[in-house]
Amino acid sequence: MRETESVSSRCRIALLGFGTVGSAIARRLTAPGAGASSNIQLTHVFDRRAAEKRASLQADGVSWTSSIDDVLHSSADIVVEALGGVEPAAGWIRAALLAGKSVVTANKQAVARHGPALLALAARQGRQLRFEAAVGGAMPIVRAIGDGLAGDRVTRLVAILNGTTNAVLSQMEATGCSLDAAVREARDRGYAEADPSADLDGDDARAKLAILCGLAFGLRVDPSQIAVRSSASIGAADFARARKRGATIRQIAFADYDHRASVLTAWVAPVEVEAASLFGRTTGPRNAALITGVHSGEIGIFGPGAGGDATAVALLGDITAIARDKAAIVPAPILTSQFTILDSVLLEAV
Amino acid sequence: MRETESVSSRCRIALLGFGTVGSAIARRLTAPGAGASSNIQLTHVFDRRAAEKRASLQADGVSWTSSIDDVLHSSADIVVEALGGVEPAAGWIRAALLAGKSVVTANKQAVARHGPALLALAARQGRQLRFEAAVGGAMPIVRAIGDGLAGDRVTRLVAILNGTTNAVLSQMEATGCSLDAAVREARDRGYAEADPSADLDGDDARAKLAILCGLAFGLRVDPSQIAVRSSASIGAADFARARKRGATIRQIAFADYDHRASVLTAWVAPVEVEAASLFGRTTGPRNAALITGVHSGEIGIFGPGAGGDATAVALLGDITAIARDKAAIVPAPILTSQFTILDSVLLEAV
Repeated sequence: MRETESVSSRCRIALLGFGTVGSAIARRLTAPGAGASSNIQLTHVFDRRAAEKRASLQADGVSWTSSIDDVLHSSADIVVEALGGVEPAAGWIRAALLAGKSVVTANKQAVARHGPALLALAARQGRQLRFEAAVGGAMPIVRAIGDGLAGDRVTRLVAILNGTTNAVLSQMEATGCSLDAAVREARDRGYAEADPSADLDGDDARAKLAILCGLAFGLRVDPSQIAVRSSASIGAADFARARKRGATIRQIAFADYDHRASVLTAWVAPVEVEAASLFGRTTGPRNAALITGVHSGEIGIFGPGAGGDATAVALLGDITAIARDKAAIVPAPILTSQFTILDSVLLEAV
Repeated sequence: MRETESVSSRCRIALLGFGTVGSAIARRLTAPGAGASSNIQLTHVFDRRAAEKRASLQADGVSWTSSIDDVLHSSADIVVEALGGVEPAAGWIRAALLAGKSVVTANKQAVARHGPALLALAARQGRQLRFEAAVGGAMPIVRAIGDGLAGDRVTRLVAILNGTTNAVLSQMEATGCSLDAAVREARDRGYAEADPSADLDGDDARAKLAILCGLAFGLRVDPSQIAVRSSASIGAADFARARKRGATIRQIAFADYDHRASVLTAWVAPVEVEAASLFGRTTGPRNAALITGVHSGEIGIFGPGAGGDATAVALLGDITAIARDKAAIVPAPILTSQFTILDSVLLEAV
């Protein structure tokens, strides 16, 4: 590649927030030979406590700042928003798009509330706003619905979208323990925050479901419009009753859209599911989804739903997609020619 | 939207081939109010038998031709290749890219053999080559691996990639019938061609696996390098033996890449899988895949693996993605504001 092309196609990243997700993505972007291609470079990190955190990242050429204006006026091509919460995150995403930057975010609350306006702004600006990491962790459900099924008419989504609640409920199922004991266990394993009420009550899942309703049905749904029933009152006796029917209990996010009548049925609640079903078999902090389309039938997807590493994979996928678009619209994968094929291994069982 | 924008962002489609897949996509593109957004317009259809087939599509403004040059010299923005087979398809994809058009294809054999060169050409031309429909039917595995996991290092793929063979083997499992009887049944249901040997022998699956190895590992793998064992000699006795071990038999495509040693292990073969596993539960003409990444862990995906409608969904998803890029780089979804939410429905079981 010629030097001039190399310079013009380099993609500079500014990161907002150096918490669990932010530090994971910073490490991935600055690790030698890590997944992301080498034309992607972390150039700026914004954090309110930049002064004390900067020592924890071993990387040259990264400017730390605690002033958002430094990022907005920087040469960064992509702003990666890893702050969480609606504000100031949503306002800063808007400011970054107005400053001509593309934005990648893991922020389900900001996207659920302001996604349509922010996407319209991105389109007007000729920039991208991507948010694969906002729903489903490393499970690429935003792409599956927003792009893969863009040629279909989606009629129904049924999903486990909150990894914390799933870890708690499947622990209760496995051990017969109380919800409080399962929450403590999930905290010890790093699957739950100190206060998991937004997870158990369904606030987290309905923000994600609102985003998916926009992608799948083209509906502008406010999370507060989605009916919710908390999982916090589920007890060992509920699991015992379910077990007698060959079932178990999961927090399910459900949306069904009757396109003809323009009627959306949408809720998040703990419900009984067959133990042998996709959802019954989804244990620990995992996510799973069944998507029904008129033409494609039923498509399923599952994977790790939480954790800094899984979220970082989703953010990096979005960053890479924008960097590729910037470079040449579309990817010619960089192929390796030196490898050996072992063709004698034909296992009897996988 | 202003008139000038509307005109410039309209995306014109030329279709190559009016067989099962081609006619399905033509109907979807010309149906009033169908899934595809209205700025996408079918303008040209190429078919060797254009003269006799043109009457079967009720649509205004579509030019039929049996000359490929008419398509190459046309005003079409995207060429949709639905011919199948390596040549002349691969040569025409190349010619279309050289003529400044983007290309969407369902052609696994052409992409498996010429994908890297064609993708490099597309990048040089500033155009797109997309092939979601070449692998996995409506199951968006090309996006999941090529984009969604671009931020990870994929180490292993295990998948059912041939819907015909899966329909045959799962029918044998369910009824205890012979392979010949199961093939007849699959033909009757439209899941198998008159000659399903490319499916049963593994040629189809290894072309698809070669494509996925390029996306997942960055390896240029010729399908002929992938070890293959035919499923054509599997009999009822094999299933009986498997059943005693709680297993069943599926045609599995397997690839594991040791990045450190640059060693690829890749094969397609009928193997025993646990009856209760993802693959054991995948019946009929479905596909399924487990993808393992260093950072994201295990991600699963499954869905309908064959049929004109499923393939058309995948092609339309790719067409829509290119049309969006052409319009404004990224999608602001067209949202509906008039709908009703039924929030009183909280089912006890899904």
